[in-house]
Amino acid sequence: MTKYSVGIDFGTLSGRALLADVSNGCEIACVTYEYPHGVMSDSCGGKKLPMDWALQDPRDYLEVIVKTVPALLEKTKVNPKDIIGIGIDFTACTPLPVYSDGTPLCFTEKWKDEPHAYVKLWKHHASQPQADRLNETAEKTGQEWLSTYGGKISSEWMIPKLMQILDECPELYSDMDYFVESGDWVVWQLTGNLFRNTCAAGYKSIWSSKDGYPSKEFFRALDARLEDATETKLSGKLAPVGTCAGGLAEKMAALTGLAEGTPVAVMNVDAHVSVPAFGITEPGHMLAIVGTSTCHMLVDREYRPVNGVCGIVEDGILPGMYGYEAGQSCVGDHFAWFVENCLPGEYRDEAKSRGISPHVLLTEKAELLKPGQSGLVALDWWNGNRSILVDTRLSGLMIGMTLATKPEEMYRALIEATAYGTREIIENYRKSGVGVSAFTASGGIPNKNPMLCQIYSDVLNMPIRVVSSTQGPALGAAIFGAVAAGKAAGGYDDIYSAGEKMGATEGKTYYPNPENARIYDKLFAEYEKLHDCFGRTDDMMKRLRAIAQENR
Amino acid sequence: MTKYSVGIDFGTLSGRALLADVSNGCEIACVTYEYPHGVMSDSCGGKKLPMDWALQDPRDYLEVIVKTVPALLEKTKVNPKDIIGIGIDFTACTPLPVYSDGTPLCFTEKWKDEPHAYVKLWKHHASQPQADRLNETAEKTGQEWLSTYGGKISSEWMIPKLMQILDECPELYSDMDYFVESGDWVVWQLTGNLFRNTCAAGYKSIWSSKDGYPSKEFFRALDARLEDATETKLSGKLAPVGTCAGGLAEKMAALTGLAEGTPVAVMNVDAHVSVPAFGITEPGHMLAIVGTSTCHMLVDREYRPVNGVCGIVEDGILPGMYGYEAGQSCVGDHFAWFVENCLPGEYRDEAKSRGISPHVLLTEKAELLKPGQSGLVALDWWNGNRSILVDTRLSGLMIGMTLATKPEEMYRALIEATAYGTREIIENYRKSGVGVSAFTASGGIPNKNPMLCQIYSDVLNMPIRVVSSTQGPALGAAIFGAVAAGKAAGGYDDIYSAGEKMGATEGKTYYPNPENARIYDKLFAEYEKLHDCFGRTDDMMKRLRAIAQENR
Repeated sequence: MTKYSVGIDFGTLSGRALLADVSNGCEIACVTYEYPHGVMSDSCGGKKLPMDWALQDPRDYLEVIVKTVPALLEKTKVNPKDIIGIGIDFTACTPLPVYSDGTPLCFTEKWKDEPHAYVKLWKHHASQPQADRLNETAEKTGQEWLSTYGGKISSEWMIPKLMQILDECPELYSDMDYFVESGDWVVWQLTGNLFRNTCAAGYKSIWSSKDGYPSKEFFRALDARLEDATETKLSGKLAPVGTCAGGLAEKMAALTGLAEGTPVAVMNVDAHVSVPAFGITEPGHMLAIVGTSTCHMLVDREYRPVNGVCGIVEDGILPGMYGYEAGQSCVGDHFAWFVENCLPGEYRDEAKSRGISPHVLLTEKAELLKPGQSGLVALDWWNGNRSILVDTRLSGLMIGMTLATKPEEMYRALIEATAYGTREIIENYRKSGVGVSAFTASGGIPNKNPMLCQIYSDVLNMPIRVVSSTQGPALGAAIFGAVAAGKAAGGYDDIYSAGEKMGATEGKTYYPNPENARIYDKLFAEYEKLHDCFGRTDDMMKRLRAIAQENR
Repeated sequence: MTKYSVGIDFGTLSGRALLADVSNGCEIACVTYEYPHGVMSDSCGGKKLPMDWALQDPRDYLEVIVKTVPALLEKTKVNPKDIIGIGIDFTACTPLPVYSDGTPLCFTEKWKDEPHAYVKLWKHHASQPQADRLNETAEKTGQEWLSTYGGKISSEWMIPKLMQILDECPELYSDMDYFVESGDWVVWQLTGNLFRNTCAAGYKSIWSSKDGYPSKEFFRALDARLEDATETKLSGKLAPVGTCAGGLAEKMAALTGLAEGTPVAVMNVDAHVSVPAFGITEPGHMLAIVGTSTCHMLVDREYRPVNGVCGIVEDGILPGMYGYEAGQSCVGDHFAWFVENCLPGEYRDEAKSRGISPHVLLTEKAELLKPGQSGLVALDWWNGNRSILVDTRLSGLMIGMTLATKPEEMYRALIEATAYGTREIIENYRKSGVGVSAFTASGGIPNKNPMLCQIYSDVLNMPIRVVSSTQGPALGAAIFGAVAAGKAAGGYDDIYSAGEKMGATEGKTYYPNPENARIYDKLFAEYEKLHDCFGRTDDMMKRLRAIAQENR
């Protein structure tokens, strides 16, 4: 008898439910549902929002569940009894204020017009002043955990977002019982139980299994009213990923058509859940999810401090391992910027008349170039640098242009720059004693652009495995669902065996061309010089940014 | 009775004759004639040309004279007897091999199929190996004159071009009697007398009034067969600019309609002749001719060694003064490159639908920006750097791009970069004790683009006078024609009084905005850091160029 697991992936604009065969991870069906409210960045509850806000309505998450799961059952005619587990992955940090019974404050008459009552999406950046205060205080008071996060806490994370509510709407702060990740809230809605998963808590809420949250003294130093935050607004049981949060509640079973009591795993973060989804369970195997930006995940048995990472969290990716996360803040965004701002009319016309995307056209032309022949090198910092410099004030640079430089040469230079940025991250790990021995890339860009994959392979001088499945997060959630179910129910006892059986590994491997690798070694040496000069020695980019801000 | 003077300007693609009123320099009429053979860079005499060749046919120069001058007379009905002088300006170094009677070798049956028998246009760059050899030898043997030319002789100049003939076609080298500037040859055709003008000789043939040509020993070190070059192929009387080369010969009078015996001035170089043409006769007043590249002329009473200039020549621009020439190898070419390679389709469409040039559109948009607001700085080295680094292997750089960077911001950054490049040249002069107290710009670009002029004024923190006449060279030639005629004939005794009366000074003056100047001081400091880093300290651009050449 075939057993199945459901993974529900909550993205930025939509959610999707995937039904997977527990024995081999094969996707049986997938149903997507767009959030009716999408991302609210202009207005919310009839109020205009200031710059840098990004909210969501938690009703949309419930809608995803009741629209996609029944459709999945309808489509596949699978017997709900054969569905042995449910997993959830979510964007993070995407928290919302709720009452002790789980009711979001924005569902109440009292708060429905208050933007702070809604979900603060991961890319809500309006908590930057709070993040700045937090970082300043942490540095001044010598917080040890700071080094675990590359020396800086992002405005996207839990505590700055909580601080912003306290600063701007203290009544709402007082009124809420919990401030929770939306993914944890969804699992709570499904099971009736509140668990904070250690992946999100570790990467986004400055929690660690060894030291818990930052101390009361630290919170007091931020604001006296925050002193007891971890015992109140941030309280709740913590559970490692793969833990079963409970069985599906009666009401949700009725709404979805799934069987009451079906085990539900605690939430995972979308990027991190992709590691076992792509069959990666061994230390030193990096997964790069290449999209508008790139997220690099890696596990290791040891904890080793590494400069400039996004976070190092015990059990954060796979239980029993330290999960290392790093990132590049601008990858696909570079290529999109180029097409939007630098694509000559004749290129645009050619792409249009041939019915291909400008990216395909530029890649066609760039593919004819040999490494190094353009004489160009760029820094991939149009959107700052996440790892390993952790500085959003850095900006772009390109060197080597001549009157003969063509658009495809600059386009290729930008692709190469992102490859050098990845190599910089890997070499930084290696210098810190964290091995990187294998590399898997996933996402739309590597699947669509073989030239990019070959460049990455040549620049890193490593084979690049590209997995063709683009359902990494949803499949990962389904895998954790199968782990929550356990072996006795037809699932798995641990994520290692589950990932091995259910992980999607189909795809293509690119091998380095030794001649190209030799040329790229030379070019990378130049990239590194620029990287260290403008990222470390000379503050020119920051001075230019300051001049720009003064004169806007 | 009004007296007139004719100036004939020989450009790269065409020649033009201008009739000027000797009393005030007013342009009475101007007739242009395009060279039938244009620039031969692909083939010549039925032979395919290698890369970097650029030839002309001297028949075209004679055609210009016999087509334009009669048309000028026809058009204006001026009595030829009232035309008191003729002046010629020419591109340089643009030499050709001739026999002792002035017949170009390319006019003969024997040599008509040999490309080396034709005119080597200034931008013929195929003598680079010879220039390299010359520079190497000059450095090794410690030639003092090297410092007069910024430490490097260009492949565009006379001796490398002569060496190339010797290397590649020694029979033709032996056969020719002289290797002369085409402008000197034209004056020879007009008057029957061969004079080498000291302007071209000084700037392009390593001649100085103090030391003459380089020594026999030096020429022998280049090639034993060159030992007597200055007594043979390069021999001929030298004459300062403004000298009368003789009266118009009978045959040429018949062909042109001008009076036999009309005084003809020795040739001037086109850029240098513009100095008195724009009424500049005082030390410290820089003239910048802004075109695809920019040429900066300046006179001073003293000789002061200055690093990185193109040449410092006694009597080279105005008699009795030292003429200083510097240059930027890429100005209008930057903007043209940008429009050709980086102009988005929608911008192109908008320009087209409004019937304006893309440059006008980009300028419209760039004008709305405040200095510094883009956060961008560029180095203006897409075509290398002529002054003050004298290095063609340097390349472009842009820093400060973000995902919000727009095309007009990059376009403006390129314009600003050329202004910084000019400031670098001026500050270099000042450091060397050569004062620069006034600035005049001429050429199509400053006349068409007020934003550029304001940027230059703000960056230099000096008033920028822009003269509207675009006939600088032709008018300058006419002014020298009036000097050749002399005061007794109704002309002038010296170029100072002639320039004062006949110089074109109409135009517009741009004054620095103190607030903008303050911002540009900051940005120029960043430019200088990049300039010194990549132009002096770090050879990255040269390494990248070497990598590019290896992989082409």
